[in-house]
Amino acid sequence: MQNNQLPTAPYKGTSDFLPDELSERNYIFNKWRQVLSELNYQEYETSVLEMSEVFKIKSGEELGSTQIYSFLDKSNRQIALRPEQTPSLARLVSNNFGELKYPLRWFSIPNCFRYEQPQRGRRREFWQLNVDIIGSEEGWADFESIYLATKLMTAFGAKKQDYVVYYNHRGVLQSFLKEIGIGDESLKQVFHILDNWAKMGESENEAELSKIMDDKAKNQILCLLEGMNREMDLWDDIVEDEFPAFSELGDRLSSILGSTVDLQLNPALVRGLTYYTGMVFEVFDTDPVNNRSLFGGGRYDNLLDLYGKQASAVGFGMGQVPFTDFLHTHNLISKDDVATRPTTVLIPLTNEAVQKCYAEKIPELVSSGVAVEIDLDLSRALNKRRESAFKKGFEAVEIE
Amino acid sequence: MQNNQLPTAPYKGTSDFLPDELSERNYIFNKWRQVLSELNYQEYETSVLEMSEVFKIKSGEELGSTQIYSFLDKSNRQIALRPEQTPSLARLVSNNFGELKYPLRWFSIPNCFRYEQPQRGRRREFWQLNVDIIGSEEGWADFESIYLATKLMTAFGAKKQDYVVYYNHRGVLQSFLKEIGIGDESLKQVFHILDNWAKMGESENEAELSKIMDDKAKNQILCLLEGMNREMDLWDDIVEDEFPAFSELGDRLSSILGSTVDLQLNPALVRGLTYYTGMVFEVFDTDPVNNRSLFGGGRYDNLLDLYGKQASAVGFGMGQVPFTDFLHTHNLISKDDVATRPTTVLIPLTNEAVQKCYAEKIPELVSSGVAVEIDLDLSRALNKRRESAFKKGFEAVEIE
Repeated sequence: MQNNQLPTAPYKGTSDFLPDELSERNYIFNKWRQVLSELNYQEYETSVLEMSEVFKIKSGEELGSTQIYSFLDKSNRQIALRPEQTPSLARLVSNNFGELKYPLRWFSIPNCFRYEQPQRGRRREFWQLNVDIIGSEEGWADFESIYLATKLMTAFGAKKQDYVVYYNHRGVLQSFLKEIGIGDESLKQVFHILDNWAKMGESENEAELSKIMDDKAKNQILCLLEGMNREMDLWDDIVEDEFPAFSELGDRLSSILGSTVDLQLNPALVRGLTYYTGMVFEVFDTDPVNNRSLFGGGRYDNLLDLYGKQASAVGFGMGQVPFTDFLHTHNLISKDDVATRPTTVLIPLTNEAVQKCYAEKIPELVSSGVAVEIDLDLSRALNKRRESAFKKGFEAVEIE
Repeated sequence: MQNNQLPTAPYKGTSDFLPDELSERNYIFNKWRQVLSELNYQEYETSVLEMSEVFKIKSGEELGSTQIYSFLDKSNRQIALRPEQTPSLARLVSNNFGELKYPLRWFSIPNCFRYEQPQRGRRREFWQLNVDIIGSEEGWADFESIYLATKLMTAFGAKKQDYVVYYNHRGVLQSFLKEIGIGDESLKQVFHILDNWAKMGESENEAELSKIMDDKAKNQILCLLEGMNREMDLWDDIVEDEFPAFSELGDRLSSILGSTVDLQLNPALVRGLTYYTGMVFEVFDTDPVNNRSLFGGGRYDNLLDLYGKQASAVGFGMGQVPFTDFLHTHNLISKDDVATRPTTVLIPLTNEAVQKCYAEKIPELVSSGVAVEIDLDLSRALNKRRESAFKKGFEAVEIE
């Protein structure tokens, strides 16, 4: 190393995208865009830079602020690189509240930043599709959100056995817990335990539940998770009496999507404690080596609360890295999918030939849908130039 | 205002893109991508976050570091939001130097940040197309760079009278200055004065020149700028004797592009002091109200110097905002250009009709290339729903 040499690696937790890597990512993004624009969803964008306060307060809580990249600008404003899109979406909608025509069917594919230790599938910079319907009440909009999530899967060729869609309603779960005697003061803790259920061991989960309820209530929760008849009957009664829209949702999902998608009610599904106010859902990879949640979403009718406005909302967020892993695991993406057009290289032997290439050959080939490159190194031997073209993988080589 | 309400404006100098604004920007970006991919240029991407050192040192100079958004991360690394793409490109190429197949024909459309007072056409966050050929010596590659710049103009319908392409070679200018007696120690100052020529008044420029040269040399520079015969003869002699490749470039430009593009040698064109080592060019808007440089580029064979490597490079950078202004000024973009597909709204009157829309009508319409939205608000009166559809601008409305 010379002493004035700089290090060449990208900043920790960020990635360089060489053309092959970027074209795969952009192929996925563009297919998302296509599926969404078919259903007339509109793309919006906010800046990666926001005032920190946009992220700091959410329903009165700090949102993992230790993970936020925040700093002071030169006028001492506290600014941050967005860790997620939803708070900026809320700000954007509030800023244009009166002029927008509801319901909004909107999406965005932002890069987001979190300050955490990089590991497989978790980088400091990551991309995430966000899809929302804003201004449409519980009902068909909830169905459409799940419908779209499954369209994004089937558009890439995912089959029924490749993934499961779990769905639930937090209100039903809450009523069930109250019905079996859990007091208001413990509800949040139970939600928290259920949300982390799969990450913990069985005995650990039971011990946590025992701290806040008697054995009878604990057993009823365990029976619910196992789908035992008595608890499911109670569950169904609650749905029928208090949540008719959720009852309809289940019917609609199975009758419209049931033949192509594996849809399963999961009464313990919570999807975090921060956002959701109603229906929640999760798309889960069934592959044994990659058996995990891919993405999910739900209804959050509190979107604009911090801005003193009211808008009902339902939507989901989907990380690019887990989705791409899913496509690779199930062999749903190949080099041919990603390539946009056939390629030809022209190897001119004289300056006159180069001139003819620019003036005539290129316009001609381009108009026939081919990507054309001219080998400009006239000083090299023809066989070397041919060899380079071969190594670069051109589909056609023309000597001029 | 309630006391917990947050401000809704985007952070100073950044923009929110509502769908209509974003679709115009993305239309432009995608047309750039199309033109470039036709000539087999490959898109790459680096992160907006870099270690600050990538930007701080360039040929031993500080690069406007007061304008850089830089901050310490939680491990006390000095990081920055990129103010431009080229330093990251140099880092990326150096990091993969041995594995890449040259010449690279690469492009990127990064968002960049500069800490400056926002004003018309200058925001703190801005997008910029960067197009480069790396690993191809002076000659046809220089031609191709200008050729591509003009393709990006004509692809949007720009006509010969809409813009001028000025070109020059810094080596020729340097030889000319030496020839008229300017010493090595003053060259940089003269370049600086010429680079800012249009921004200053005539008397100011002459006074600056007088500080570092005698009247005879000053007059020769003024005569060169006016294209006087004697000075142009000297210029032509230098080109013929020392810069045959640049002489050929002029011939090639006029014979291949001359009929469609207004190409003019501008012996005073410098394009900044930092990068360029040979040919430079600039695309200039001829519109009287918007009469200014749109974008430019040139050869910079020192791209990898800081990384202890050698690669010849030629390329250009083009800001999205001035380019978009150009399109609007010359009426080269309209709403119809930006719209991607015709839109239909389905207005179902019953839940059974909604179900039929999702199950049958949507797949049917989508496969015919239409974007379809379902009006889900079954509780509203039909005439209200029709009115909303009309206001939203759908091209077709179907009652189901």
